[in-house]
Amino acid sequence: MSNAPKHLKSGSECPPLKEGQLRLYGMRFCPYVHRAKLVLAAKNIPYEEIHINLTEKPEWYLKKNPPGQVPSLEWIDNQPKETRFIPESLIVSDYLDEAYPQTRLQPTDPYLRAQQRVLIERFSSVVGPFYKILRGDPKEGIESINKGLATYEEALQNTYFGGSKPAMVDYMLWPWFERFPLLKDAGFQFNADGNLPKLAEWVQNMENNESVQKVKVPFDILKKFIDGYIQGKPEYDIE
Amino acid sequence: MSNAPKHLKSGSECPPLKEGQLRLYGMRFCPYVHRAKLVLAAKNIPYEEIHINLTEKPEWYLKKNPPGQVPSLEWIDNQPKETRFIPESLIVSDYLDEAYPQTRLQPTDPYLRAQQRVLIERFSSVVGPFYKILRGDPKEGIESINKGLATYEEALQNTYFGGSKPAMVDYMLWPWFERFPLLKDAGFQFNADGNLPKLAEWVQNMENNESVQKVKVPFDILKKFIDGYIQGKPEYDIE
Repeated sequence: MSNAPKHLKSGSECPPLKEGQLRLYGMRFCPYVHRAKLVLAAKNIPYEEIHINLTEKPEWYLKKNPPGQVPSLEWIDNQPKETRFIPESLIVSDYLDEAYPQTRLQPTDPYLRAQQRVLIERFSSVVGPFYKILRGDPKEGIESINKGLATYEEALQNTYFGGSKPAMVDYMLWPWFERFPLLKDAGFQFNADGNLPKLAEWVQNMENNESVQKVKVPFDILKKFIDGYIQGKPEYDIE
Repeated sequence: MSNAPKHLKSGSECPPLKEGQLRLYGMRFCPYVHRAKLVLAAKNIPYEEIHINLTEKPEWYLKKNPPGQVPSLEWIDNQPKETRFIPESLIVSDYLDEAYPQTRLQPTDPYLRAQQRVLIERFSSVVGPFYKILRGDPKEGIESINKGLATYEEALQNTYFGGSKPAMVDYMLWPWFERFPLLKDAGFQFNADGNLPKLAEWVQNMENNESVQKVKVPFDILKKFIDGYIQGKPEYDIE
């Protein structure tokens, strides 16, 4: 019997919110949801997770969040007593960091904060080609992803992008690094020519990080999902 | 003789930075630069502006900022003494708000902050169609822009998006509202069917705002630039 949570889809009903419990709407294999889960783990924030089938989205979810994306947060607030909702991975992550100030993941210095935010925003130079390669356009994609990664090798001036320990920026970039082995069949291997020594060490350190370990999806299950996703038949509830 | 600042281009040299002076790299007609200038005006921050020709970008600017976009900020910091640089309109604007804490434009409450950030991020539902219409695809564009604007009519629950006075979110959205008259020839008129009464009142209030007035580019000059831009021949130094 599987312990994997079922992904709710069209025709389902929204499970009732419990007072005092933070809810994360997610999808088990989504890198953007992965970001929020890393922040929740790093800050030790308790939450329940509701999985959304992104191919046949529940009507009730589209009502809460018309673009239908995950992750999002929902909870019942006390002052005033009302339901609150926040979408978008970066906004969710920054909200969690501000609303739960233990173990701050963002620097308080405005310049450092801005610099790290630039690294997060410009990571599209890696994420864009990642999906190109995944969807079967490896030729242009591999050149672009290596170019994008080279700028991160240059930007890494410390053990972590955030300094001597992982910070928000590290967690926001990590989900795609964990997924690089998915691109192996398409011919991409991270640091294939050894030009990314600092990044390679960072990957090693991140892999050993407690929060990273805690929310990791076993690679063979992720691979099974992605194989279906590429063929246009994503299977959400797999073990 | 013109008072309009010249836009520096390929082959130019970077004017030396002065200690103690904040520099904004901009382009006179760019809505993203407009965002930063609204924040600088609202917070009464002194700065010098260096204009960049975006068609023939100076080599020295591409070195500072490889994507070559404006706005960006630069200044000499004291501790330690080094040159600092921040790109990207939203990151520049948030940095200014945090580094110059007088007249805070962002709410301190994490939930309000997140909500207003969602409004800023999702404004692509208006900005995307704006450029579609401008570039001569009014049919699909007009339907999309009206759909996008309807969600902002619904979101506007107070005089301003930020509450009883203009906040970061208001300034981040404003530049495109000021540019709507540019779409007149393409058949788009803001609030043509009267379905956006709250937004229309917000536009009125924003037009009377001191910071908005201060950084406004006269419409006929903006129009002249845009006419050239649409034809692929933007003329930066016009009066």
